[in-house]
Amino acid sequence: MVGGARAVARCDALGVAPYSDMAGGLYRGYLTPAYVAAQETLAGWMAEAGMTVRRDPAANLIGRYEGDDAQAPALLIGSHLDSVRDGGRYDGPLGIMLGVEAVAALHAAGRRMRFPIEVIAFGDEEGSRFPAAMLTSRAVAGTLEAAALDMADGEGVTLAEALATLPPLVPSEVEGHDPHAGASTSLGTNGLGYDRHPSEGWGLPGEGAPEPRETPASAGVTHYLEARYPPALAYLETHIEQGPVLDVEGLAIGTVTGIAAQLRFQASVIGVAGHAGTASMPLRRDALAGAAEMLLAIETIARRDVSDLVATVGKIDALPGAANVIPGEVRFTIDIRSGDVARRDRAAEDILDAIAAIADKRGLDFDVEHIHDLPASPCDPALMDLLDAATVTAGQPIRRLVSGAGHDAMVMAALCPTAMLFVRCRGGISHNPAEHVDPADAEIALQVMLGFIDRLGDAS
Amino acid sequence: MVGGARAVARCDALGVAPYSDMAGGLYRGYLTPAYVAAQETLAGWMAEAGMTVRRDPAANLIGRYEGDDAQAPALLIGSHLDSVRDGGRYDGPLGIMLGVEAVAALHAAGRRMRFPIEVIAFGDEEGSRFPAAMLTSRAVAGTLEAAALDMADGEGVTLAEALATLPPLVPSEVEGHDPHAGASTSLGTNGLGYDRHPSEGWGLPGEGAPEPRETPASAGVTHYLEARYPPALAYLETHIEQGPVLDVEGLAIGTVTGIAAQLRFQASVIGVAGHAGTASMPLRRDALAGAAEMLLAIETIARRDVSDLVATVGKIDALPGAANVIPGEVRFTIDIRSGDVARRDRAAEDILDAIAAIADKRGLDFDVEHIHDLPASPCDPALMDLLDAATVTAGQPIRRLVSGAGHDAMVMAALCPTAMLFVRCRGGISHNPAEHVDPADAEIALQVMLGFIDRLGDAS
Repeated sequence: MVGGARAVARCDALGVAPYSDMAGGLYRGYLTPAYVAAQETLAGWMAEAGMTVRRDPAANLIGRYEGDDAQAPALLIGSHLDSVRDGGRYDGPLGIMLGVEAVAALHAAGRRMRFPIEVIAFGDEEGSRFPAAMLTSRAVAGTLEAAALDMADGEGVTLAEALATLPPLVPSEVEGHDPHAGASTSLGTNGLGYDRHPSEGWGLPGEGAPEPRETPASAGVTHYLEARYPPALAYLETHIEQGPVLDVEGLAIGTVTGIAAQLRFQASVIGVAGHAGTASMPLRRDALAGAAEMLLAIETIARRDVSDLVATVGKIDALPGAANVIPGEVRFTIDIRSGDVARRDRAAEDILDAIAAIADKRGLDFDVEHIHDLPASPCDPALMDLLDAATVTAGQPIRRLVSGAGHDAMVMAALCPTAMLFVRCRGGISHNPAEHVDPADAEIALQVMLGFIDRLGDAS
Repeated sequence: MVGGARAVARCDALGVAPYSDMAGGLYRGYLTPAYVAAQETLAGWMAEAGMTVRRDPAANLIGRYEGDDAQAPALLIGSHLDSVRDGGRYDGPLGIMLGVEAVAALHAAGRRMRFPIEVIAFGDEEGSRFPAAMLTSRAVAGTLEAAALDMADGEGVTLAEALATLPPLVPSEVEGHDPHAGASTSLGTNGLGYDRHPSEGWGLPGEGAPEPRETPASAGVTHYLEARYPPALAYLETHIEQGPVLDVEGLAIGTVTGIAAQLRFQASVIGVAGHAGTASMPLRRDALAGAAEMLLAIETIARRDVSDLVATVGKIDALPGAANVIPGEVRFTIDIRSGDVARRDRAAEDILDAIAAIADKRGLDFDVEHIHDLPASPCDPALMDLLDAATVTAGQPIRRLVSGAGHDAMVMAALCPTAMLFVRCRGGISHNPAEHVDPADAEIALQVMLGFIDRLGDAS
């Protein structure tokens, strides 16, 4: 099996029990039993690919493939191991598995780069257990606030408690792979005994891995915040597109230009509730009819801007919400994104103007609350060029596209230059059991990643 | 205080504890403590107005003012005593209080009509406690099914149990009114001792009231269904408009031509859910944007039919309902009404066609389920003429209008010819604590009711 197909197959393997916390579907929450089980299996695959494996204080799993210069800043290749509830198998894991495959290919060819490569399986990107997202990349990038440790999950368990009580990691033995086989495994000197305390790491300091910065979790939860990484050469994240652009255009992969700037509003429209049978049409001040006109205006404004701009109303509530009552109040969200902040803000202004005009025309009151404003996170232009060059070498057309969704890469940008490679997913469907990636596309992505690594070696 | 103002004041008096089951607002559910308290006070007012009072097996309170011909079919004047949660004070009670005032005026003038007059305070019109509406007028009209007795309220108490455990009625003594004063009170022979079993009634059979058809509730709940009335001369219901037409036109009252035919649909629109950041605008199949266009089409179709036609979307749900997810499914209700069934059905057809066309254009699937279809309930033309004539005599312009809302009158049409008189309510607001009726309007309504009774006497 070629590497791309194996990466897909490994994502599939992790899509069921014991790697899922939910029956009949995939849910792998950060620090749950399924999460630990997935880490154990992944640790085996990393070791098999020639990496030393460790778990950092944020419970990220990190595999290190040594460079000729052990002191050189590392190339980080990462994505996340957690999933949404009833999610797909590739959103997150595919980027990790392809990172493992890239290292496996180098390892099989007996090649080392000048710089070390570390494959990071982030623990939380989705906000899969605690009420915040990208917790573990923020820990690595040094942008997580200490208060995060006090956040509680749905059952009242805090992040600090969940980390302190995490069972030790016992990496699985990979079938057909002998962990005693020597240097290529780099899995420590205790053979199958992967039973050291997880925070001790599996690195072999004597072989050039950086000095362990981790301390035992039991020593104090504040260590979670000490997961900050040393300076890195670059961060590369391969991820399914989670949108239909590549699929519609018949492309396997695309170079991401950056993560879109995002604006979120909460709008409310106030009319006059009334009896559905008794209020004649001309006399109504129907908040829902007004909101419907606003929704169409939002769609029209976003559509006429023929670019990466998107605007979405995902949530709507009409009150009081009875079939025989004209809604007196409607609340809805507005989400506006573009890789270009100015474009996004121009659209937002047009949308707010349209809402005001419609409310005025219909005698409705309205209120728009600014919920959040995430700046764009552009990818590094030089790294994009490397991905494009590798794309050409792989025989693929160059396609640059913005990521409307957030990814760990936007967090990692605080640490080092970032690059992202998108892989086509069928129909653009993600966060859904129907999520699908073609193994052939994964193989193309792998070749582009290897080309990128080569060129980064030439450039650095 | 003239009768109209007193009727309004009595509605106000019943708007607070102990006549409400809710603190800080009005909720009077069928067969609740507030309901029994209101019946007791109302029974006193009925007696004061010269009526004999009884509670029927459906726990309706009925006051009878004898006619010269005790065997003649009675004129029934009725409305409902229950309210919605956090409702207004006049929706229902006003029609009862004005019925009491009409009889009080005849009684004060020492007048009797040839026919008896019975003022009925229906127990349930709003579906205020059990999951069905107009229960008690259906019992009277003989259209209630036996299965209704098994319906349970929110706490699991069945209608049968609630009726069986209803405390006896103890009518309040009216201040300044001596229940011992003689024939004018007609409140039975036991003086203040209004403590007989409620189902025994307070009628004085020897004085010409019909033979009691009621039997003790404890004898078996099936008696609820035996509340059916003997043939009646006519049913007159005065009610607030619950809509803004009279208010906008500056009219105190209007003659109702009938209760609108009503169609109710449940629509669902199926698109493709997707990530709000990653699905580009041209590729979306956004169920909510499609639904918004459908809602506007529904409004446009209803508005362009410049008539009594109304169409309402009162309830909408977008799934999965997250700010960052394009809705994959939207469900909404459609309520269409008109006094003219053909007009209503034509509009419904146009609406369904528009939904199909929008779904087709946008690549959405849809489903429309027919929830219910209530036929129109026209008022009796001869009785409408009597109301119009009385309106002219009262110095008011004639205004005929359809009732978009359902009323007990539509049920009573199974028993006898019906008439309805609407009274202006400020801003058309009802089912709301802000519901307001001008006492002067109530006085005009009372004069029209008295004129109607006079003319009915001439006609019958």
